[in-house]
Amino acid sequence: MKIGVGQINTRAGDFGGNADKILAACRKFAGEGADFAVFPECSVSGYPLNDLVFCGNFVAAAQAGLLELSKKLPLPAIVGCPRACEGGAGFRNSAYWVCGGVVRLVCDKILLPNYGAVNDARIFDPGENFGTVDFKNRRIGVTVCEDIWTLPSVPTAGRYARARKPLDYFSKPDLCGDGGVRIDLLVNISASVFSSSNDNVRRTGGLLCQVSKAVGAPLLWCNLVGGNDNLVFAGGSMYVDASGDSPKSECLAKFEEECRVVDTCTVSGFDGDSADYSGCADLRKAVVMAIRDFVRKCSMERVIIGLSGGIDSALVAALAVEALGSGNVLGVSMPSAISSGHSVEDARRLAENLGIKFHIIPIAGTVAAVEDALAPVFSGMPRDVTEENIQARARGIILMALSNKLGALVLTTGNKSECSVGYCTLYGDTCGGFAPICDIYKTDVYAISKLINETAGREIIPQNTIDKPPSAELRPGQKDEDSLPPYDLFDAILKLHIDEFKPASEIVRLGFDKGAVEDVVKKVAGAEYKRVQYPIGPKLSPVSYGCDRKIPVAAKKTLL
Amino acid sequence: MKIGVGQINTRAGDFGGNADKILAACRKFAGEGADFAVFPECSVSGYPLNDLVFCGNFVAAAQAGLLELSKKLPLPAIVGCPRACEGGAGFRNSAYWVCGGVVRLVCDKILLPNYGAVNDARIFDPGENFGTVDFKNRRIGVTVCEDIWTLPSVPTAGRYARARKPLDYFSKPDLCGDGGVRIDLLVNISASVFSSSNDNVRRTGGLLCQVSKAVGAPLLWCNLVGGNDNLVFAGGSMYVDASGDSPKSECLAKFEEECRVVDTCTVSGFDGDSADYSGCADLRKAVVMAIRDFVRKCSMERVIIGLSGGIDSALVAALAVEALGSGNVLGVSMPSAISSGHSVEDARRLAENLGIKFHIIPIAGTVAAVEDALAPVFSGMPRDVTEENIQARARGIILMALSNKLGALVLTTGNKSECSVGYCTLYGDTCGGFAPICDIYKTDVYAISKLINETAGREIIPQNTIDKPPSAELRPGQKDEDSLPPYDLFDAILKLHIDEFKPASEIVRLGFDKGAVEDVVKKVAGAEYKRVQYPIGPKLSPVSYGCDRKIPVAAKKTLL
Repeated sequence: MKIGVGQINTRAGDFGGNADKILAACRKFAGEGADFAVFPECSVSGYPLNDLVFCGNFVAAAQAGLLELSKKLPLPAIVGCPRACEGGAGFRNSAYWVCGGVVRLVCDKILLPNYGAVNDARIFDPGENFGTVDFKNRRIGVTVCEDIWTLPSVPTAGRYARARKPLDYFSKPDLCGDGGVRIDLLVNISASVFSSSNDNVRRTGGLLCQVSKAVGAPLLWCNLVGGNDNLVFAGGSMYVDASGDSPKSECLAKFEEECRVVDTCTVSGFDGDSADYSGCADLRKAVVMAIRDFVRKCSMERVIIGLSGGIDSALVAALAVEALGSGNVLGVSMPSAISSGHSVEDARRLAENLGIKFHIIPIAGTVAAVEDALAPVFSGMPRDVTEENIQARARGIILMALSNKLGALVLTTGNKSECSVGYCTLYGDTCGGFAPICDIYKTDVYAISKLINETAGREIIPQNTIDKPPSAELRPGQKDEDSLPPYDLFDAILKLHIDEFKPASEIVRLGFDKGAVEDVVKKVAGAEYKRVQYPIGPKLSPVSYGCDRKIPVAAKKTLL
Repeated sequence: MKIGVGQINTRAGDFGGNADKILAACRKFAGEGADFAVFPECSVSGYPLNDLVFCGNFVAAAQAGLLELSKKLPLPAIVGCPRACEGGAGFRNSAYWVCGGVVRLVCDKILLPNYGAVNDARIFDPGENFGTVDFKNRRIGVTVCEDIWTLPSVPTAGRYARARKPLDYFSKPDLCGDGGVRIDLLVNISASVFSSSNDNVRRTGGLLCQVSKAVGAPLLWCNLVGGNDNLVFAGGSMYVDASGDSPKSECLAKFEEECRVVDTCTVSGFDGDSADYSGCADLRKAVVMAIRDFVRKCSMERVIIGLSGGIDSALVAALAVEALGSGNVLGVSMPSAISSGHSVEDARRLAENLGIKFHIIPIAGTVAAVEDALAPVFSGMPRDVTEENIQARARGIILMALSNKLGALVLTTGNKSECSVGYCTLYGDTCGGFAPICDIYKTDVYAISKLINETAGREIIPQNTIDKPPSAELRPGQKDEDSLPPYDLFDAILKLHIDEFKPASEIVRLGFDKGAVEDVVKKVAGAEYKRVQYPIGPKLSPVSYGCDRKIPVAAKKTLL
């Protein structure tokens, strides 16, 4: 059988645009002799939708788009679209078999995740029936995303201990109380959230192989690709047949759209291992896609980045150029009286290396004017962090004015290490519409920066930016390490505390310095108020701020 | 029987502080001859907890606090506390009977809400058993919050169509497949989220009467009181007996702590109707409590408010004084070249009426410095909203500098009408740690302001502030109604669109002007990017931004 795998990048609410992508892919597939096509979860409506589903006629409009699409398709396709429950109360996340004006509901998503970064259970009711399509003498089982994440190897499978599971239905037809069926192919239309730790689904013995083996049939996993607010979907769709002695597979690209016909008769070999997660290279691709998609799905084109001469803003600028092209990126150096000479020079050099437009807008006048205005009130009080923050906020006001005047989005340059402890100024360097690296630890910021220079075969990120000790440059001679532990140690503590929810006591027991651990943990707790107002940024790690770590602000947190 | 009802105001994570409140109440109750005491949901740990539950040793520490507390109690008490599931994976939201060092698990919350502003299902596993306590020849049924919200009159009850329901167990002992029991009293320990539309639980025939009638026994509903980040818990706990011919009840105070012994033998009459929601008066109390609790639970004391001379900042200042006392509130007028003369005078007069400290800090110098710095880039480009935003952001930088230097929290003064359409400047007037009135429509801002003057019997909010047409004063002669519909019309459209999720087409069908409706709906969709970075503010309406309306930013929204 020839299956068109439509790994498309959808936009929430853009029924017309999404349908156009589905239609274009299907025309290509038809030209290549495909029997039918498969598209990701909610491919007609976009995903995730969150409370858009509750908005007025949203779901009715999605359904109208689905019907319209079905009339134009040159071959049958499995697509995803939300639907209203019978009787009108509630919605379901559904898979359809569409062709020739016929829209046939195949199944609704049964297992609705409500953990980490997703809460499908908030907006959808669970499906109640299993779905198959009989086509050209084959029986195709159809599932939606989480529906196949129930094997014992999946950490979150326990959440569905009591649910009716599609994999039971399709894998144990004789045992399953639901009266299961044997199938010739299992299709899973998916929108699986990317994180640097969850990309072991494709490898030998990984989830997809396990599922194929369990149902005794090949599996076609069609995964969404693209960035949508704070979620990244990595694509990497896969046809895998592990039902026989040696697994066979065919993988689609990661982090880009790809629409490819897989001929199930000629698939040979197994490429899941080579398609697996590859550290910084994949993080880089994920961020580039996240920037491009956020900007374009907001109907914008250009971005502005404050260039401090430091590594964070340099990396964001380099990734923005990869995402949007150098003509769409403006770099701005905003030196103060305190800035070192190399700050402007490193920023200028970066801008030259990237070929982006570059402005120098000094902030000394603004800082002086603010301090003058406050002098009557501050008279007799010592200088402190207030004056440091005034500098950062003067830069914020300049960047936002440029954003307003030029119609360009400000990218925020903070990394996960500094977000963790609040080593940033609210309304200062936190200004912006999107924070591309806010879920990347500082040590990885360096690693990706070096990778960018390596793969370019020349200096993109200035070597001096990589070599010099990091500094916020908000007071003379300031260095990050005056306030924070060395980044190797700092990030190791943070990963245990944030990504694994370990308390200080346990981290100390693992051999880390008690003073450093308690200082970091205390700062993390104290910075929640900054993070609740932080711009959206892509989830890349197992536990990102914002989407999968929800901590009250007005709380006592001494025990964390 | 004499029951001590401990309607306390807890703080998340403050096991010691919460235990102290429980202990003090129990000592009072013991002195008054109470048989036992009842406290709200999660009374030992605080509520809501969100992902604090996942943090290291949080739940173990809560359990240690519970054990410690049990040793000191002079009478038995029903309290709430999270616990780890047997086997170590997952947590439950539980009710305990504690006394004399004995900690007896009575039941776990069975029905876990995942809608609107709450997501208990994210952090807790559902309980599996019903709970009773036999005490002094009575059988007491125990339930946790949502567990009694399953009668047909409850709009969200359908979500639990297939769940095992405590009310079935206690009300239909002969019919219920679970083998229910008859009880002499039903206790519900609760943390019920306040909104202006949900306060009909107490009235004649309201939820509490219905529950009492269904189980054929009196109900003691012990509700949490206090503000916790964006949620307000109204208290108003109630003992109600509607099992006989005429209902009897006793209500505790709304919006304040109260620990009172209810003698079930002497309760007579029904006071649920008078305890019902009372419009602006209750909104006012809710906001005052929310401000006080947010500031104090953040371990702060003082607040700073930018006073524009307009109604929003005047109301926030008046409510802040009620919450924290005039000595803890600083008002700041920040006139620009454009500000009208009455702006400073109205602000000064308000400050005098409130007896608060007042500074005038002009922003003209800052605005000029920013414009000077940008002049080389902006040369030849027309003035536009950029320059308006520079003014608002100059005020933001001043307020935040005062916040840093004085260690006081900035209160944000935006109302729900302007938040809805983004009639505000990000990092300008949106600066602040807490936004007390961001879920109050402009028409209600006026109503509450007038109420404040009426109840004071003198002018608190200056009459000129109430009388003059609202203006952002960011360009000469600017009025809100230049950009927005008249507020009566505007708020009516918003309530349909936001609180009821109605699309533009349906609002137009109800008779509203098409142009006005489409303009408002379009602006609401376009302002999502501002709201995702907006400060925390208390949910007061049926659908607040932030906690119960989660809309993607990078989406196409033309159909809303």
